[in-house]
Amino acid sequence: MEPTKTRPGNFFEDFRLGQEIVHATPRTVTEGDVAAYLALFGARFAYTSSTPFAQAIGFARAPVDPLLAFHLVFGKSVPDISLNAIANLGYADGRFGVPVYPGDTVRTRSVVLGLKPNTDGRTGVVYVRSTGVNQRDEVVVEYTRWVMVRKRDPASPLPDATHVPTLPAVVPASSLVPPVHGAPASWDPVAAGSAFCWEDYAVGERIDHVDGMTIEESDHMSAARLFQNTAKVHFNLHVEREGRFGRRIVYGGHIVSMARALSFNGLANSIGPVAIHGGRHVNPSFAGDTIYAWSEVVDRAPLPDRDDFGTLRVRTVATKDRPCADFPLHDAAGKYDSAVVLDFDYSVLMPRRAMLQLTGR
Amino acid sequence: MEPTKTRPGNFFEDFRLGQEIVHATPRTVTEGDVAAYLALFGARFAYTSSTPFAQAIGFARAPVDPLLAFHLVFGKSVPDISLNAIANLGYADGRFGVPVYPGDTVRTRSVVLGLKPNTDGRTGVVYVRSTGVNQRDEVVVEYTRWVMVRKRDPASPLPDATHVPTLPAVVPASSLVPPVHGAPASWDPVAAGSAFCWEDYAVGERIDHVDGMTIEESDHMSAARLFQNTAKVHFNLHVEREGRFGRRIVYGGHIVSMARALSFNGLANSIGPVAIHGGRHVNPSFAGDTIYAWSEVVDRAPLPDRDDFGTLRVRTVATKDRPCADFPLHDAAGKYDSAVVLDFDYSVLMPRRAMLQLTGR
Amino acid sequence: MEPTKTRPGNFFEDFRLGQEIVHATPRTVTEGDVAAYLALFGARFAYTSSTPFAQAIGFARAPVDPLLAFHLVFGKSVPDISLNAIANLGYADGRFGVPVYPGDTVRTRSVVLGLKPNTDGRTGVVYVRSTGVNQRDEVVVEYTRWVMVRKRDPASPLPDATHVPTLPAVVPASSLVPPVHGAPASWDPVAAGSAFCWEDYAVGERIDHVDGMTIEESDHMSAARLFQNTAKVHFNLHVEREGRFGRRIVYGGHIVSMARALSFNGLANSIGPVAIHGGRHVNPSFAGDTIYAWSEVVDRAPLPDRDDFGTLRVRTVATKDRPCADFPLHDAAGKYDSAVVLDFDYSVLMPRRAMLQLTGR
Repeated sequence: MEPTKTRPGNFFEDFRLGQEIVHATPRTVTEGDVAAYLALFGARFAYTSSTPFAQAIGFARAPVDPLLAFHLVFGKSVPDISLNAIANLGYADGRFGVPVYPGDTVRTRSVVLGLKPNTDGRTGVVYVRSTGVNQRDEVVVEYTRWVMVRKRDPASPLPDATHVPTLPAVVPASSLVPPVHGAPASWDPVAAGSAFCWEDYAVGERIDHVDGMTIEESDHMSAARLFQNTAKVHFNLHVEREGRFGRRIVYGGHIVSMARALSFNGLANSIGPVAIHGGRHVNPSFAGDTIYAWSEVVDRAPLPDRDDFGTLRVRTVATKDRPCADFPLHDAAGKYDSAVVLDFDYSVLMPRRAMLQLTGR
Repeated sequence: MEPTKTRPGNFFEDFRLGQEIVHATPRTVTEGDVAAYLALFGARFAYTSSTPFAQAIGFARAPVDPLLAFHLVFGKSVPDISLNAIANLGYADGRFGVPVYPGDTVRTRSVVLGLKPNTDGRTGVVYVRSTGVNQRDEVVVEYTRWVMVRKRDPASPLPDATHVPTLPAVVPASSLVPPVHGAPASWDPVAAGSAFCWEDYAVGERIDHVDGMTIEESDHMSAARLFQNTAKVHFNLHVEREGRFGRRIVYGGHIVSMARALSFNGLANSIGPVAIHGGRHVNPSFAGDTIYAWSEVVDRAPLPDRDDFGTLRVRTVATKDRPCADFPLHDAAGKYDSAVVLDFDYSVLMPRRAMLQLTGR
Repeated sequence: MEPTKTRPGNFFEDFRLGQEIVHATPRTVTEGDVAAYLALFGARFAYTSSTPFAQAIGFARAPVDPLLAFHLVFGKSVPDISLNAIANLGYADGRFGVPVYPGDTVRTRSVVLGLKPNTDGRTGVVYVRSTGVNQRDEVVVEYTRWVMVRKRDPASPLPDATHVPTLPAVVPASSLVPPVHGAPASWDPVAAGSAFCWEDYAVGERIDHVDGMTIEESDHMSAARLFQNTAKVHFNLHVEREGRFGRRIVYGGHIVSMARALSFNGLANSIGPVAIHGGRHVNPSFAGDTIYAWSEVVDRAPLPDRDDFGTLRVRTVATKDRPCADFPLHDAAGKYDSAVVLDFDYSVLMPRRAMLQLTGR
């Protein structure tokens, strides 16, 4: 009897330009998810850690880490978009909307923005824009990613329409939406762990985040399960033992969250990400790898009509088994240093000096 | 000085026919437990994942996964029933009652239904019926299991009464209680991840659940701790290194939860289990094993007086390091295939077609 | 460009006698943290497990395990106090105040009580008293610890004031504050898992807690992340592989929580700790170690003006890969047995017999 009840995921020839896909498994986020995420990554940003701190700066309560929201939204798209993917090639035009609070329910839908068959005849690139919304249909995060997907049958005809979308190199700072509501009353730099505000960061400044954290199999699998991300390569040693790397591959987003948590040491007052301009998983990561990170301030801009926050565009580079005191990125030939695993280009909010000076405790 | 304050657990000669045991450690279940369970098993059933989905089909909010409720109820019984057990031999007549919601407090009591000394003189089989109730004394789950328990002293006399209870081979569909309250308004097949309804499943149909998931030591120990299951064999490498298998043994219920989570791929619309007809841990599992699963539809029945749900009786077989495309079960000699670790016979609810057709989103 | 935004932690010459440090990262504790803590340690004390049980004995609801509160308070102090520490030398005068409930927000401040340069010229001992408070500035726990900290520069001058504080050998029972509110209505010994009350424990009595639990890398790192404890030695295999032990070192407080969870088997009715008189991490622990524990009742005292609870002063000794049936502590030469990892001196509350006798269910 045929296993017809099982969903095989989509192959390259299953996608159509303009196709809209509503993904399964709406997800009510809870304080339990927040604690599980904290135990996995250990971030120390005060606004996601403390409800009084979050309320003092204009949130209703401590919001869910925006990257946890991103991973939940992303995870839902995997069974439809990337179950048969060979590689997650890139991200662009990621915008975070309203914050997610415990109790909110997140859903994801995607639109196929582009399709490009590869010359090998066996694979193609699918460009999708995924949008995560809450129970009020407010956008939580939307982003474009492109993935290399297998064809089910190399003999399948090419898609009717081939199209590579034009993607913005950067989300303009003027379009960023601060997730806070109303006017922040104050920002306590002691509670936040740093007195450095928006005015203190210079374009071109580089920051070594110093610390390293080692990945365990249980941790990256637990994270992917929490995100309901079903990509097979993360979970199945029996298959991966015979695969390309001989072991399970860590979800690329796991490295993003590790790098963000490490970046507290240098970017303690940051809120975000509020935008993802681009991102590349340069090399795969595995259990046993120790992840380090450093960041460069790429740009800084005030927020229109607000004097409480400014934006910093940051490029965070993560490495494995390689400290970042000398900011490793490219080798002499201009290629990525072999230790680099992530090159992530995003924006955060930073409180302006006037806001820090309001503060008692 | 004697360690008299320490509870040694019961041995075979400590049990009496008809004895009632109230187990320790009432447990308030929270959203934290739900998130921890999700990070451990990664199930994607929409009704336990999303409060709006759960409410649309008649729950007060997203209920706790019935298997998490089962494990919590089971865990409490371990210190009294199976701390000195050699093997958990089987399950029968398992019935799930009211759903457990975060905030509910679960307690367990058991009655000794049967006692049978083994001919070796050193062990016996104890049959117990355990009942888990909530803070309103409503039954959450009740089931019978039988375990082989050591005698404290091989010279102890046989029990006054020896009795092997008659156990039903199947919980009749007519006695199953749907956990939903009131009339479901709708069932969104897109959100649930499948359009297959009760009418689409045929008796005899077999489904390969395709995916495999590898067990880590940290995962199965964390699960057992979450369930407050104290069986020594799961936790103590120092002892188990010298034991029968040379390593820690995974709680059998861990495999049940893995198999249920894997079965989403093929049984996405199922609610349950609502009954456990029988179950056997065919072989032990260990960290490093990759668990696969397949299911067969054994029976299907309408629910009395309801046209929204029907029941499917399902046999789910889990294997280790062995994909299930060819539905492994028995070898040529009629014995279990050596890769089989679990043979689990249970019932789930499935929405009927009319209910899916009501649905917008 | 210099990594000036990164906090390097304090070195010995950075501390001043009487200095007050307000630590970063206020932390709202949730039911998610409680579940994560349970999955990590598996404690079965009824009053932290069940809200109805906790309410019956005078809590507003199930409180957060006092050791979880301790670890959260301690974790905040690490970036300022012990990031450059070589060893955590001891604890004294630890007092627990009001219980922490989910929803409370914990903050920590510390005062430098003492400074003593070591004769090696490269390190010194810093004595700090750390105080954890909730959002109402009520003390949750306060304790003194002393750590050996590196000098940034061996040539730095000695501190202006050298001082070794006088620390009490014991927190007097008369000063202990029961965390319960109002008069307990009853104590259910069956639900709690033991009928042994305060009157049943004798000074000098020793209890083997029997069970052993093996540490996994993922578990101790997850715990430290949950506590937002950033000490580098717990997380970075890449560095520690070349370090003193060739591997990551388990946070000493992890062993305290394991020992406390194991001590349920013998001290099931205990509430606490309510005081920490002293504590010593005798040897480091690593992933793969199996932790066992035993306890000795050191003292017992009634509580002033209360007939519901008495206090027990308990010394709990934890070992690795060494069962505790013979209560290992010192060798023939009077030094610690090489298997001992923790020597912990604390007090708990125990219900008095009259309180257990009130009980129905």
